[in-house]
Amino acid sequence: MAFSHRNLLGLEGLHRDELTFLLDTAASFKEISERDIKKVPTLRGKTIVSLFYEASTRTRVSFEIAAKRMSADFVTLTATASSATKGETLLDTARNLDAMRPDVIVLRHPCSGAAHFLARRVECSIINAGDGAHEHPTQALLDALTIREHKGQIEGLNVAIVGDILHSRVARSNLFSLRELGARVRLIGPPTLLPREFAQWADLTSDLEEGVRDADVIMMLRIQLERQGKNYFPTTDEYSRYFCLTERAVRLARSDVIILHPGPMNRGVEISSTVADGPYSVIMNQVTNGIAVRMAALYLLASRVREEGGTIPASAEIPNEAEPRLRRRVG
Amino acid sequence: MAFSHRNLLGLEGLHRDELTFLLDTAASFKEISERDIKKVPTLRGKTIVSLFYEASTRTRVSFEIAAKRMSADFVTLTATASSATKGETLLDTARNLDAMRPDVIVLRHPCSGAAHFLARRVECSIINAGDGAHEHPTQALLDALTIREHKGQIEGLNVAIVGDILHSRVARSNLFSLRELGARVRLIGPPTLLPREFAQWADLTSDLEEGVRDADVIMMLRIQLERQGKNYFPTTDEYSRYFCLTERAVRLARSDVIILHPGPMNRGVEISSTVADGPYSVIMNQVTNGIAVRMAALYLLASRVREEGGTIPASAEIPNEAEPRLRRRVG
Amino acid sequence: MAFSHRNLLGLEGLHRDELTFLLDTAASFKEISERDIKKVPTLRGKTIVSLFYEASTRTRVSFEIAAKRMSADFVTLTATASSATKGETLLDTARNLDAMRPDVIVLRHPCSGAAHFLARRVECSIINAGDGAHEHPTQALLDALTIREHKGQIEGLNVAIVGDILHSRVARSNLFSLRELGARVRLIGPPTLLPREFAQWADLTSDLEEGVRDADVIMMLRIQLERQGKNYFPTTDEYSRYFCLTERAVRLARSDVIILHPGPMNRGVEISSTVADGPYSVIMNQVTNGIAVRMAALYLLASRVREEGGTIPASAEIPNEAEPRLRRRVG
Repeated sequence: MAFSHRNLLGLEGLHRDELTFLLDTAASFKEISERDIKKVPTLRGKTIVSLFYEASTRTRVSFEIAAKRMSADFVTLTATASSATKGETLLDTARNLDAMRPDVIVLRHPCSGAAHFLARRVECSIINAGDGAHEHPTQALLDALTIREHKGQIEGLNVAIVGDILHSRVARSNLFSLRELGARVRLIGPPTLLPREFAQWADLTSDLEEGVRDADVIMMLRIQLERQGKNYFPTTDEYSRYFCLTERAVRLARSDVIILHPGPMNRGVEISSTVADGPYSVIMNQVTNGIAVRMAALYLLASRVREEGGTIPASAEIPNEAEPRLRRRVG
Repeated sequence: MAFSHRNLLGLEGLHRDELTFLLDTAASFKEISERDIKKVPTLRGKTIVSLFYEASTRTRVSFEIAAKRMSADFVTLTATASSATKGETLLDTARNLDAMRPDVIVLRHPCSGAAHFLARRVECSIINAGDGAHEHPTQALLDALTIREHKGQIEGLNVAIVGDILHSRVARSNLFSLRELGARVRLIGPPTLLPREFAQWADLTSDLEEGVRDADVIMMLRIQLERQGKNYFPTTDEYSRYFCLTERAVRLARSDVIILHPGPMNRGVEISSTVADGPYSVIMNQVTNGIAVRMAALYLLASRVREEGGTIPASAEIPNEAEPRLRRRVG
Repeated sequence: MAFSHRNLLGLEGLHRDELTFLLDTAASFKEISERDIKKVPTLRGKTIVSLFYEASTRTRVSFEIAAKRMSADFVTLTATASSATKGETLLDTARNLDAMRPDVIVLRHPCSGAAHFLARRVECSIINAGDGAHEHPTQALLDALTIREHKGQIEGLNVAIVGDILHSRVARSNLFSLRELGARVRLIGPPTLLPREFAQWADLTSDLEEGVRDADVIMMLRIQLERQGKNYFPTTDEYSRYFCLTERAVRLARSDVIILHPGPMNRGVEISSTVADGPYSVIMNQVTNGIAVRMAALYLLASRVREEGGTIPASAEIPNEAEPRLRRRVG
């Protein structure tokens, strides 16, 4: 088994064996960050560029530390400082970068499908670090790694994902990976933020207590306060009253439940501080695993021998590289 | 032959042999970026600082990748984040950096002459990465390298430069280098943006079709839309009608014409997408060559043995280090 | 003798031997920056993160160059680009970083006590790069190193510190270190910016000429023009008339006086250009020494063997790690 894709655009369509291989590779990289000398020469002479059209220090720093611990050169572009202000198209910016011979571009973009769009048009590898409301594969992989570490396996677990399901690329990527790895997923949120179409893959409910009952894993989503102009729910207070994860709700889950949150947290909005800092919280483990997952993703893509590209038929419809359907970010 | 200057401030006054030596050095660095391990230890232990008072991600990233592929330490300062907001003078900022013992400062500044001004007052080397409407030497060198690669030589070529000649440091640096290397240069633009004084070095015309006729090379300039408050031409539409490079105009040039553009492009304003993406476009080659040219410039300046400074009489009027005359950026 | 602290939060409470050890270590690192190859492998595989909630290019660049010359990986976060805009608390941001296994976080924050607050809650080491009006230890160390280099010793010197004493973390850190190292300190400034409580440690005066008379060292502070909404003095002109350091005032000091300024300078406000650029000015030496001091601080903290943490009783009240009393930044 190996990971034969040129890009990491999403988890939709990845096979269980591929996901497991990604997680195993990440797990094997974990100990590097625990060493006294946290550095291996694995990606020396490789160039990784982060191209972020949305602010996300956390994700960028995680990729940067991952790259540097493998001795890669890492270069940061942010959209405000970039040619975007001079009216250049995304494609021209990316093709320009591509002409500088990077090995991987790590892309964060507000439009769903942006990573797929570029992947077909540049020679370097693309890692999707979040595209609109579509996918955020390394986040879902670090979530899966964290769950697997604490539960031994993912098969058969009850996983409750709570919050703004409609706009969440984190929820979507997790839905694909967790189901493929054998978990049962419940999606919980206000009816306005809980798309009916997801009923084919998960149980849907707007009742938090019903949703977390007997859960092995509760994954909270961040309420993006800055996006609530559209009035998907009346007020933040109203939201919190029904969907904030408090100790009372946690007690309905299994006694060995673990709580995840992708951060940054709105304490008191979607999660109470008692829960965020409680013994069942694995939120800091997620962050630590983020480094390992990004080391694995960068390693698998950047160390590809370019000549081997020939072994993948260029015309092959690699499932996770298909352009996404109708996933424009709302709002 | 060698490059005996301490700084790279402009191409005006550089001898044909010096330009050729710079291009040869750049050409020899090109293959490093095509390797699987894109890294050489050439500048290990050297410190390169980029000090940019104008946004230019493209140029900064090109220098950064060039520096890192030669194992130099690269540190980025941008003016908005810098002490500029605290009212410090350019000279104090640069002298402070100089006291931290960098080997090279790469300077981008809106005032013509800024790089020359600093070069006389700091100990490290200065590379001018664009000063007002004055010079942008590494851009013109990458243009020359791209032309030489495609045409074999520059001597005897007809080069048409089209656009806002008045404000373009790219045009100015190219004019110096291309003429010195033996090309015939035509400058094409609206009469308001085509300074009469240039008639001593180039043919001037405001007729695009006349200008590109039988050209071996067409070099488009970027229209800086953000600077058009001064009304050098009526509207962008008006400009495009007369000066946008379309296939129709390209067909008047020689059949093996190549098209250059320094980027970022305003598609549909100064260049049509068909031309920008057409078979005669070498725009992506320019970007690739930018890395090589900047590797060469950093190498030649940063690997200078400081003691050798003594062999250059401090009082010698090195031609390209003379302060520029009356070249304040307009607008 | 060694430096047994986990963090560098302030100079208050540090013993003379510890200060001397820090200065000696810094002095031993100076020559690295004078080499042709300015790089040692000392901190290879260590991760240093700069987390700045206030703009300070100068300080960040100094730490970055120091870190890179010792081969550490250096990652920059700035507050505007960081999760701060998404409403995350300082503690959550720092704990997240901590989970990525950095060795040192270099923190700049507008609130006094921020560095102490974090130091108790994360596992990595913290260097305080300025917290409100409280401390800025590496600045005071580079000042002490510069004084010691020029005067041979600090014991017995008359040091005049001039300016906005009330808001100055530079003044405060210097007061602690210079007194501990045996200097006599005079604090000079407008009565509104000269806290009475400091009379227990230093002579206070609002008369510049009286204050600098027979001084061995004059240390000017930066007037933070952006903070003068609170009207601690009538106008900048008024301030300058009484407190700008001119040649006339310098002549009252000892003939071998040296002048320091932490930068960035407001020329003509707190210091005249003649003085700033005069022969007694050691301002550029301060900047050069800043690199050496930061190399020393990073080295002593990042190369700590984590296991040895056990030898420092966790409960021990290390003097300089006590949370500061009532030092909220005014204004």
